Amino acid sequence: MLRSSATGATAQRTVPPPTGLCLNEDNSHYFSTRAGQTLNRETVASWVDQYAHTQVRELMLCPNSMRTSYDSKVWDPIWKGYDPDGPDDQPLLASTPAAARKGARNWIHTAWQLQRAGIDPYQLWIERARRHGISPWISMRMNDVHNVDDERSYIHSEFWRQNPQLRRVNYRLDRSADRAFDYGRAEVREHHFKLIRELAERYDFDGLELDWMRFGYHFQPGHERAGLEILTEFTAEVRRLLNVWEKKRGHKIRLGARVPSRPQTALGLGYDPATWARKKLIDMLVVTPFWASVETDMPIETWQELLRGTSVTLAAGLEVLIRTHPESKQFQKNTLETVRGAASSLLDRGADRIYLFNYMDSQTAMDDLENYPTLLREAGRADTLQGKARRHVLTFADTWAPGEPSAIPLPAQCPADRWRAFRLATGPVPTGGVAFARLGVEGLTEADVANCEVRLNGEACKFGGKIELKTPKPESPVYSFPVPLTMLQRGYNVIEFASKRDCRITWVEIAFA
Amino acid sequence: MLRSSATGATAQRTVPPPTGLCLNEDNSHYFSTRAGQTLNRETVASWVDQYAHTQVRELMLCPNSMRTSYDSKVWDPIWKGYDPDGPDDQPLLASTPAAARKGARNWIHTAWQLQRAGIDPYQLWIERARRHGISPWISMRMNDVHNVDDERSYIHSEFWRQNPQLRRVNYRLDRSADRAFDYGRAEVREHHFKLIRELAERYDFDGLELDWMRFGYHFQPGHERAGLEILTEFTAEVRRLLNVWEKKRGHKIRLGARVPSRPQTALGLGYDPATWARKKLIDMLVVTPFWASVETDMPIETWQELLRGTSVTLAAGLEVLIRTHPESKQFQKNTLETVRGAASSLLDRGADRIYLFNYMDSQTAMDDLENYPTLLREAGRADTLQGKARRHVLTFADTWAPGEPSAIPLPAQCPADRWRAFRLATGPVPTGGVAFARLGVEGLTEADVANCEVRLNGEACKFGGKIELKTPKPESPVYSFPVPLTMLQRGYNVIEFASKRDCRITWVEIAFA
Repeated sequence: MLRSSATGATAQRTVPPPTGLCLNEDNSHYFSTRAGQTLNRETVASWVDQYAHTQVRELMLCPNSMRTSYDSKVWDPIWKGYDPDGPDDQPLLASTPAAARKGARNWIHTAWQLQRAGIDPYQLWIERARRHGISPWISMRMNDVHNVDDERSYIHSEFWRQNPQLRRVNYRLDRSADRAFDYGRAEVREHHFKLIRELAERYDFDGLELDWMRFGYHFQPGHERAGLEILTEFTAEVRRLLNVWEKKRGHKIRLGARVPSRPQTALGLGYDPATWARKKLIDMLVVTPFWASVETDMPIETWQELLRGTSVTLAAGLEVLIRTHPESKQFQKNTLETVRGAASSLLDRGADRIYLFNYMDSQTAMDDLENYPTLLREAGRADTLQGKARRHVLTFADTWAPGEPSAIPLPAQCPADRWRAFRLATGPVPTGGVAFARLGVEGLTEADVANCEVRLNGEACKFGGKIELKTPKPESPVYSFPVPLTMLQRGYNVIEFASKRDCRITWVEIAFA
Repeated sequence: MLRSSATGATAQRTVPPPTGLCLNEDNSHYFSTRAGQTLNRETVASWVDQYAHTQVRELMLCPNSMRTSYDSKVWDPIWKGYDPDGPDDQPLLASTPAAARKGARNWIHTAWQLQRAGIDPYQLWIERARRHGISPWISMRMNDVHNVDDERSYIHSEFWRQNPQLRRVNYRLDRSADRAFDYGRAEVREHHFKLIRELAERYDFDGLELDWMRFGYHFQPGHERAGLEILTEFTAEVRRLLNVWEKKRGHKIRLGARVPSRPQTALGLGYDPATWARKKLIDMLVVTPFWASVETDMPIETWQELLRGTSVTLAAGLEVLIRTHPESKQFQKNTLETVRGAASSLLDRGADRIYLFNYMDSQTAMDDLENYPTLLREAGRADTLQGKARRHVLTFADTWAPGEPSAIPLPAQCPADRWRAFRLATGPVPTGGVAFARLGVEGLTEADVANCEVRLNGEACKFGGKIELKTPKPESPVYSFPVPLTMLQRGYNVIEFASKRDCRITWVEIAFA
C-alpha cells in the first residue's frame, strides 16, 4: 500500500497509522541465559509466547555476528573449535578474559547442545511467531566487530582472522569499526551474500533485515560515496534473491535495513535509503543510533518526507542505554518511563514502528525489567501511551560519518550571564497531569540555581528545588521546575538557561506525571 | 518543467542542468557607494550592464530592511526624518556612532535625492535587466534587524520602535535576532504583507523572493512548530496575490524563498520548504547560511531528494565571508579561488544555481575584486569551472534552531596519539594538475608536523613543508601535503590526522592548482 496521506512536518494523517513494535532478539542472549536449563523443542519455541498479545508485530531474530548461532554450512558456527568436555581456558576461550568466559561458554555450549539435539531455535521461533500472528523476520548483522581488540577471540570467523587486508582500516585501532570488513571489496560482499543465500533457503521468514548498524561503518574512510552505489547494488541483489524465494514459498518476503538516524550521516556512510525505497528494493527502514544511547531526537519527519510516495514502513530504533555524552562514565538503561517518552515523541513525528534493540527478556534488558510486559503493551501506539507518566531526556547521536562534525549537546559549559538553550521533542502535550522541567547542574549551590533564569518556550519557570530523581539520573544534583501544561508545545520544547556564575549543565529533561 | 531526471545521491543527470548565477544587490550598497556622483536615469540603469553577458540569470534586487530605499507609501522610506541640509549629527543620525554616520548618510541622501529627481532605481534596473535577458526579481527582507542594539538608529521603522511587544524575545539581547519581529503575531504578518502588496503593484518583476534569512529567526523560542503552518499559510497567501498579478501583467510571476542550509534546522526554525514545493507555492528555493561564513558543505543532494517531483529551482547560497569558527576574530572574504571551490562542489551535488549574496561590485565584495568579472563568468557552471585553480576550505554552518545542538568542526583540539578526521566536499576530481591538502596547526614545530600521521581517504600523505598561503588563511602556520590526484574521490574527501603531541588544527583545505 502506498503511503497515501501526507506525513510532512505540518501534515496530519487522518487515520491513525498502524503502529506497533518490532523486537530484536540478538544472536547470543537466548543461548547464554538459558544455559543449564532443559531445552526441548517446546521450551525453546515457548520463548516466543511472551510476545503474543502484545504490540510486537515483527520479531527480528538475529542468528549471527561473525559466526552463526545455528549450524551453518557456509560460515563458521559459534561452536567451531569448541570442546564441550574441555576446560574454560581451552584454546577457543583462552584469549577471553576470565570474567567473560562463563557467559561466552554458555552461549557456545547451549548452541552446540541444541544443534546436537537437532533443534534449530530460529525455525521453531519462526513457526511459533506465525502461529501467534507475529511476523517472523531474520535480522542479519552485516559487519559485526565485537571483541576485535582480541584477534584470537572465540567470536571471530576464520575468514576475518585470515584476511586482515579486507578490513576497512589497517593503520590504527581507535574503535571497533576500524576492524570491520570493507564492503568496497568484492570478496567481502560475496562472503556475506553466501550467508544470505543460506538464510533464505533454510528459513521461511516473512522478512529479511540487513542490519547495517552492527557496526555501521562499511567502507574505507573517504570511500563512502563509491559505497552508495555498492550498497544499493548489494541491496538490489538481495531483493532479486528474495524474489526467487517468494515464488518458492508462495508468500511475500520483505526486505528491511537498519541505518543511521540522520539522512546526511547515512549518505556520508554509504547508505542511500531514499534511493532504495524509490527503487522498491526495501519494505522497511529502521533509523537508529548504534548503541551508546537511545537517541530521543531522530528526524523522523524528514525521513518520512524522503520516503514519500513509497510503501516503506519507517521504524524508529531505540537502544537500551540512555546516556548524555559519548565520554560519560555512566551506562544507565532506559526504564518504562523513558521509553514512553522517546516512543511518544517518535510516533508523533510519524514513525510507523518503534523498534526495540537490546530490550530482551533478561540480562540485556531495560532497567526496571518488571515493567517489560507493560512496555510491550504500550510503547508502540500513541493511544496506549497517552496519559501515562513519561520522561523526555536529552541524549545524543552516537554515529557520525568519518570527518562529519558531530553535535553533542551535553555537558554544556555555561559561562556566567550567557544564555544556553536546549530542546526536547516531547510529542503531544498531555491533556491532564503535571509537568516538570529538570536540570542537572554542576558548580552551583541550590541558592545559586534558584537565582538562575530558566525559561520554557520563552516563559519564565518557577524554581521547584533540588530533587532526588529515579534512575536514569546524572551524578550531579538535579533541580526541578514545575511548569503548567499550557506552557508546553507539541513537538519541540525549548529550555533556556542563564546563570550568574559559571556552571555546567549535565542533564536536561521534561517529565509528565 | 518537472525535474525529470534523478537527482539523488547516487543518480546522474544525463543532460547538464541549466545552471547559472543569482546575484543579490542589497538595499543600501548602490546608494551608499554612488553618493556624490551625477545620477540620471541612464547612469542608474547602467549599473545592470556589468551583469549582461555573464552567467547571472536572476538579479535579486532588495529594496528594504525595516525601511525602504524607495518612496514607499506603506512603510517608512529610509529618508524619513532626514534633513538634507542638517548636520551629520542631526536627530535621525545622532545615535549612530560617528564613524558610521557618513556611510549611513550617503545611503539616505542618495535615496532621497533619486526620489526627488523622480528616479526609481528598482524600476530602471528591472527594465534594463529584462533588456539584457536577465530575469529581474525583487528580494524582500522579511525580518531585518540591523542595529537593534540601538533603539534610536536611523535604520528602524517606527512600527518596530513603537511595538516592542511584537518582538520574538524581550528578556535579553544576546543576538540581533532576539529583537526580530514575531511572525506568530497577526499584526507582524499584516505589516509585512502590506509591503508585499505594494511591491507587487509597483514593480513588474519576474519573481518575488521572500528573504527569510535576514535574519532567519521569526518565532518565539519553542514556538517554531506552530510557525511551520504560519509560514506555509503566509507563503500561500503571497502565492495567491501573485496569481492575481500574473493575470494583470500577462506573464508568469515566480515566488522564491531563502531558508537555512540544512533541512532539519529549517524545520526547527519554522520553515517547511518541502511542503511549499509540493503545494506548488514556490518556484525557487535558496538554501544558505546567514552571514558569518560561506558554508562549503550544504546537503544539496538531500534538498534535491526532498524537492523530487516538483519543478522548484534549487539555489545554493554563498555568503562573502569565509571563516572557520563563529568565535573567530578573522573576517576574511572569499576570493575567486575559494568561490570556485564552493561552487564546483555545490553544483556537483546538484545545485541548479549558485546564489551570490554580498558579492556586490564594490565595498561589500569579494576580496580580489579585480576578479569579479571572471567570477560572474565562471562560478555558475561546472564546465566553466573545470580545470581552474580552486580551493576547498572547511567552514561551518552559522544558523541553528533554538536549542538545536550545533556541529562546528574547527578549531579541533587534537590530544596526542588520537586520530581526528575532517572532510571536505570537493566536487569532481580534476583530470590534470596538482592537488594539496593543507592544515593550519597550532602548538607544533615544523619538525613535529613532519612527524604527524596525515592520511587522505586512508592513504598516507607526504609532508610538503610549511607554506605561505594567500588569503584567506589562518593566523597559525599552514603546512602542505602534496597528494596525487588518484588519491582523491569525487564528493567527500576525508583527511585523518594524528600527532605525537597535543595540538590544535585551525584550518583544513584541499586545493587544486
